[in-house]
Amino acid sequence: MAVNLHIPAQEDIFGVPGIEIGVTEAGVRKANRRDLTVFRLAEGTSVAGVFTLNRFCAAPVQVCQAHLAQAGNGIRALVINTGNANAGTGEPGLAAANATCDAVAKLLDIAPAQVLPFSTGVILEPLPVDRIVAALPKAVAALGPNQWFEAAHGIMTTDTLPKVVSRKVQLGGKDVTFTGISKGAGMIRPNMATMLGFLGTDAGIAPALLKELAREVADNSFNRITIDGDTSTNDSFIIAATGKSGLQVNDRAHADFAALRQALVDVAAELAQLIVRDAEGATKFITVKVEGAGSTEEALKVAYAIGHSPLVKTAFFASDPNLGRILAAIGYAGIADLDVGGVNMWLDDVWVAKNGGRNPDYQEADGQRVMKQPEILVRIDLGRGNVTDTVYTCDFSHEYVSINADYRS
Amino acid sequence: MAVNLHIPAQEDIFGVPGIEIGVTEAGVRKANRRDLTVFRLAEGTSVAGVFTLNRFCAAPVQVCQAHLAQAGNGIRALVINTGNANAGTGEPGLAAANATCDAVAKLLDIAPAQVLPFSTGVILEPLPVDRIVAALPKAVAALGPNQWFEAAHGIMTTDTLPKVVSRKVQLGGKDVTFTGISKGAGMIRPNMATMLGFLGTDAGIAPALLKELAREVADNSFNRITIDGDTSTNDSFIIAATGKSGLQVNDRAHADFAALRQALVDVAAELAQLIVRDAEGATKFITVKVEGAGSTEEALKVAYAIGHSPLVKTAFFASDPNLGRILAAIGYAGIADLDVGGVNMWLDDVWVAKNGGRNPDYQEADGQRVMKQPEILVRIDLGRGNVTDTVYTCDFSHEYVSINADYRS
Repeated sequence: MAVNLHIPAQEDIFGVPGIEIGVTEAGVRKANRRDLTVFRLAEGTSVAGVFTLNRFCAAPVQVCQAHLAQAGNGIRALVINTGNANAGTGEPGLAAANATCDAVAKLLDIAPAQVLPFSTGVILEPLPVDRIVAALPKAVAALGPNQWFEAAHGIMTTDTLPKVVSRKVQLGGKDVTFTGISKGAGMIRPNMATMLGFLGTDAGIAPALLKELAREVADNSFNRITIDGDTSTNDSFIIAATGKSGLQVNDRAHADFAALRQALVDVAAELAQLIVRDAEGATKFITVKVEGAGSTEEALKVAYAIGHSPLVKTAFFASDPNLGRILAAIGYAGIADLDVGGVNMWLDDVWVAKNGGRNPDYQEADGQRVMKQPEILVRIDLGRGNVTDTVYTCDFSHEYVSINADYRS
Repeated sequence: MAVNLHIPAQEDIFGVPGIEIGVTEAGVRKANRRDLTVFRLAEGTSVAGVFTLNRFCAAPVQVCQAHLAQAGNGIRALVINTGNANAGTGEPGLAAANATCDAVAKLLDIAPAQVLPFSTGVILEPLPVDRIVAALPKAVAALGPNQWFEAAHGIMTTDTLPKVVSRKVQLGGKDVTFTGISKGAGMIRPNMATMLGFLGTDAGIAPALLKELAREVADNSFNRITIDGDTSTNDSFIIAATGKSGLQVNDRAHADFAALRQALVDVAAELAQLIVRDAEGATKFITVKVEGAGSTEEALKVAYAIGHSPLVKTAFFASDPNLGRILAAIGYAGIADLDVGGVNMWLDDVWVAKNGGRNPDYQEADGQRVMKQPEILVRIDLGRGNVTDTVYTCDFSHEYVSINADYRS
């Protein structure tokens, strides 16, 4: 049921010089499924990441944070399994994540702290670490220069399609590559990042700057989507910059900084939106744009209230312009002094609510026309200030219930 | 699909001396449906209410607040329509609510400010006030001493069954009656009150005390339930105390105050829980009890995060003990310094999570057994303090999606 989600052709996916990827089957949860992925990063690659703020953050997230703090610039490998989140697993979970790093390190002749581990799948079940360790030599043997598509497959859970975005951009006279992958498709309300996004580039970016950029890029991409409001235990977004293009950007004063930042944001935003397009059971892709807010916090409160309302989401599923539900969500979003008389709402080009009430010129047929589209823009003007922000979400269907009632089966 | 919701027999519903009720058909939205209810309250009745905090609060809510402020102790009538919420309707909506009060006042020979209006149904559509005004004489003609059951019918929207709770309690040597009605069954996450609860008693309660009690009773009943997290535009909870029993309580020092308060809380809590039992599409009644919290706010953050998670709710629907989803919800509930190592979780008597991880003794078969029950207790110990609080909610089914995709059809 993915909404306008197109997979690029293999020739449109550019390998990133300095990054090799290998994918294999480890039988983590199901047989005959590519579920184990290894990234090898060239020496000198800068790596930065942002991670979930969920207090029950998974064991691999804790290990990632420790290794990034220890190894700093020296991260040389990523290892990712699907089928099991290794979350809610306590000390044995940490031991399993560390054992995975140890095994990768031995195979690649690096230190365990140079490996970042990632897991996705069911929570509260022990990670079958022996099966992962046993399959790692196959993943390492499969390492090759452009296996992004295979990796996008290898990290899927309830995703129906693999998610890859790839661009080449001329920066500072160099051809610079940006390629990334992501996965959803439920428990998605990233708070700092999403499970899982990986973005590689052969631009060179100084580690301190990349650390700042990882946060900024996440805030403009993964931190602006929601499927079900459930912030995952495993959200992780990683940028790896190998420097192999010859472009090296060390600070914001660099002539190519703005274009580089924009390229990273563009690729990450597209990866994030692909998650929404492939959201569990989604039939509609909804853009919620809040204008006239007094602050970013206000804009996001309203956008997320709309994006999380089961009543709003089921109305979209039904193509029913029951738009009072959107007003109700604005009203309970938590802006205590909101003057509803200043609120206006449009559905694409249709002006639905005017100064807090139904626009006298609004015709239900016009609302109906827009609601039937697969892509819909909800635009709100709060009439309080100059801040605009946008969140991407989806509808709520029978299929969502089916998928999440059956997920472990 | 109501969960263990039993309608009392007519002989178990006690009329409240001093309160007459009349119900009729006005054709607000559908023909042949009792959709208009009038309460007449005896002179001297104390009335207090609490209302939604939704900033898009409906026109009748605004009028209720104004009339309670003006008329104080002198409220003599309530008028309630279903089929249309008169919310998001701007100035014409206020005019319609006022016109309804005017018409009731004329028929009952009282002032318009002595009437409280209530509406429930679809938002953002004009109230067909002419049809309501035309039908009011029939409702007034139907006024009788014990029509609570008919009124419970007359305020239903997507409710499958009418909700009435009635008790007689010996207080101060008097037989005191408490009878109330409520309705749900979607857009339910009361923030101060719910749409709609009415509780009548023939106890006499001083107006100032009743005002305090309305808030306290709501906080211990309607403000502890959630169905879909959508706080309605129309939530209203009203207590009317006629004094006809001869018992008169004017302050908290009265010998019968504690028992009176408890009787009000008991009836209101049962009315609130009936809404959850008849929640849209519900197949399970879930009690979420959070112990060991540092504050009420913390306990409620955790309880509502669990109660609102679509992933948790679909797992209950499926009877699937995918209980890591509950840990994830605890983790993102917003307690920034939560030490997950102190968290324990039980499903009824089954100890699932121990010190932040899977209890080594937990057997999936035990979780499965509890998940299959129609009533389930989720008990969390946060290990942070001594505060306990409880929220009541339900599962999330295909039927919820169907109902809310079709609600206006």
